[in-house]
Amino acid sequence: MRVLGIDPGLRTTGFGVLDVDGPRLRYVASGVIQTRDADQGDLPARLKLLFDGIGELMARYRPQVAAVEIVFVNVNPQATLLLGQARGACVTALVAGDLPVAEYTALQMKKAVAGHGRADKAQVQAMVQRLLQLPAAPGPDAADALGLAITHAHAGEALARLQAAGQARRTSGMYRQTR
Amino acid sequence: MRVLGIDPGLRTTGFGVLDVDGPRLRYVASGVIQTRDADQGDLPARLKLLFDGIGELMARYRPQVAAVEIVFVNVNPQATLLLGQARGACVTALVAGDLPVAEYTALQMKKAVAGHGRADKAQVQAMVQRLLQLPAAPGPDAADALGLAITHAHAGEALARLQAAGQARRTSGMYRQTR
Repeated sequence: MRVLGIDPGLRTTGFGVLDVDGPRLRYVASGVIQTRDADQGDLPARLKLLFDGIGELMARYRPQVAAVEIVFVNVNPQATLLLGQARGACVTALVAGDLPVAEYTALQMKKAVAGHGRADKAQVQAMVQRLLQLPAAPGPDAADALGLAITHAHAGEALARLQAAGQARRTSGMYRQTR
Repeated sequence: MRVLGIDPGLRTTGFGVLDVDGPRLRYVASGVIQTRDADQGDLPARLKLLFDGIGELMARYRPQVAAVEIVFVNVNPQATLLLGQARGACVTALVAGDLPVAEYTALQMKKAVAGHGRADKAQVQAMVQRLLQLPAAPGPDAADALGLAITHAHAGEALARLQAAGQARRTSGMYRQTR
């Protein structure tokens, strides 16, 4: 299974691509989509850069699922509105390409990658480097995106174990009794 | 010139299509895109309904420009975030179809349609009905969208008048002197 992690932002959107084979994770690519080439006051142009950038990633890497960060309300309401629009453009690009979208909070990602929710940017970068055996730590936005892909891989693993357990129970006839 | 007005919302997005020929406005179509058929907790599915709905409008009516409302911060920050994502999906659908996007505030729309910025929903509906000579008042979301298209038509008229004035000045040789 190939997972595309996306950490949405209006200025910088991080991406990370992983191949997941059971418990094994293989790094494919990561980086950022930046909208600084657009006129900063031209929001439609910046949203188009995000849409086109994610479209290019899907065409190049052919992921089977996307894992996108659930963004939160900012102290600055205007920033919240801009972040919401950027995330809307990112998710729209994914669903326009018929990619299933899984959503995780930053807290879930930090727990999956670093084991606790209070990990800072540098800890996430270091843990992503270690888990994927990279020669260097990825940048903070790419690391978050890779962390989201790792979170989805772990969630999938847990689900597969549950399904296997359910299958075992069903086979032994206990599934219907305890349903 | 055919204008597509869009009043973005996560639950209900209004649309209105007008043909503009100088000062003449001709009603073409209006209505709403609703996302209530999607699982309400499945934001990606709701954004896809908005993206696909606007794509269908563009394919059917072939507008040359879109006029989209600039949304504002809500008292509820979570609602702001959702509205931002809905607007992001709408604008993304328009720019993905290479449609130029003009943006107007509700205040600009109300001034253009009703002559003052304190017009309420019912006044906007009644004025849109009168300006477009409709047999009945459109619903509030469709009326806002038609109002945005009217606002763009008026802005274009004003621009055309300015350009004509500029042309006249250029012709008389004053343009270069006063530039």
